[in-house]
Amino acid sequence: MNETIKHQLDHRTIRFFKDQRVPEEQMEAILNVFQRTATSVAMQAVSIIRVEDQTKKEAIAEVGNQPYIAKAPELFILIIDLYRNYTIAKEKGYEGDGPGMNSFFQASADAHLAAQNMVNAAESLGLGTNYLGNVLNNPSKMVEILDLPKYTFPILGLSMGIVDDEPELKPRMSNDLRVFKDSYQRFDSYLDEISEYDKEIVHYYDTRKKNQRSDTFSNQVVGTFEKRNDIREHILDSIEKQGFDLKR
Amino acid sequence: MNETIKHQLDHRTIRFFKDQRVPEEQMEAILNVFQRTATSVAMQAVSIIRVEDQTKKEAIAEVGNQPYIAKAPELFILIIDLYRNYTIAKEKGYEGDGPGMNSFFQASADAHLAAQNMVNAAESLGLGTNYLGNVLNNPSKMVEILDLPKYTFPILGLSMGIVDDEPELKPRMSNDLRVFKDSYQRFDSYLDEISEYDKEIVHYYDTRKKNQRSDTFSNQVVGTFEKRNDIREHILDSIEKQGFDLKR
Repeated sequence: MNETIKHQLDHRTIRFFKDQRVPEEQMEAILNVFQRTATSVAMQAVSIIRVEDQTKKEAIAEVGNQPYIAKAPELFILIIDLYRNYTIAKEKGYEGDGPGMNSFFQASADAHLAAQNMVNAAESLGLGTNYLGNVLNNPSKMVEILDLPKYTFPILGLSMGIVDDEPELKPRMSNDLRVFKDSYQRFDSYLDEISEYDKEIVHYYDTRKKNQRSDTFSNQVVGTFEKRNDIREHILDSIEKQGFDLKR
Repeated sequence: MNETIKHQLDHRTIRFFKDQRVPEEQMEAILNVFQRTATSVAMQAVSIIRVEDQTKKEAIAEVGNQPYIAKAPELFILIIDLYRNYTIAKEKGYEGDGPGMNSFFQASADAHLAAQNMVNAAESLGLGTNYLGNVLNNPSKMVEILDLPKYTFPILGLSMGIVDDEPELKPRMSNDLRVFKDSYQRFDSYLDEISEYDKEIVHYYDTRKKNQRSDTFSNQVVGTFEKRNDIREHILDSIEKQGFDLKR
């Protein structure tokens, strides 16, 4: 097994970092990887805001509802960016409609590919990373904090730094339940299929060093369905507010 | 620079592969990387259909409108999968609503992170890869081909194999236009800013070995806005058809 795959199989979320900056030449390598990531129809419709201002970091930590975000040595927000290309088109004389959902989904794909590529680069350098999906709790607030123009959207955050955390590797569901040949495979009872996995998760929570508790995967699944996500803005409304036409 | 980053900076789309299978132990490593990829709130709401049936490959090539898809030695379709977790919840007695757009976007994020992770693993093994965003031309047809249940959605294809193609590295826009500090940065004239890049793209198309033509980035941008994407299904309609509640 090579070094790349070794790092990939050893991936874990790192929430706590040493209180020091990452060497700038490493950050530059990671941002070059961002630039070279595959992009839908070559449109490069993703931008990054690298947040260094402490007041902004704290405001973002409040959106994410996670105080540790404010202490991340490096904090990136990945932005779906059709503003740049729409402005280019207008400067070239284009007078038609702004972007619709097809452009939004293409740029969203690009943003996530870029984020994972950056994570792989960071981990290859021994750094730790944490995805912040919780910027979606309040995209309108993120727009305000980062002064984002119309036709952009803050889709994902990513923090990184020098690791100061030792989380255990969390068990995952078997690929037998996730990888199928030629057609989607249905199972008679999913609870039967995941009963061993549920036990592994109980053991994981029970024996880990921090935040021990008793929980199963299947209970967590029910929890995500039951939870009325009151703190989260409705995402299609937020997207429309940023100028994307939901009807196209 | 380490091997991981070297491969990342050298990424290019590979459309043509040798007519032979990838060794199964390499595929297994890549699928283990899929399994270990970061996942939103640990929900693992992504599945993969590994397509080997030649008739299905040809049907997918028709959806994507690219004949070379049918010749890919390995072809994966990444599926947003809330069917599995919703069924688990129902088996546990949950009687409430099915998944909404929050779940959809979380699983979509996971699917793209997993795809890029698989690409990095494949490239570390010397394999070539190609993203197939064009499964979104006709998600309903993909649902039919792969027999996908309600609460699932085919979000992205990925082909891979042993490289038989030598595409040039395509120039990318400068990070000065894409990476900003603390706030979104607007420019007076984007056409001025990208004039050098436009020239690089002209040179790239003019000197490459296959499919030479004359084109600029800015013209391609106008093209994507002008093009009425008639062959593509409206994506929010397709998502709703698969049972996701657009209102939540």
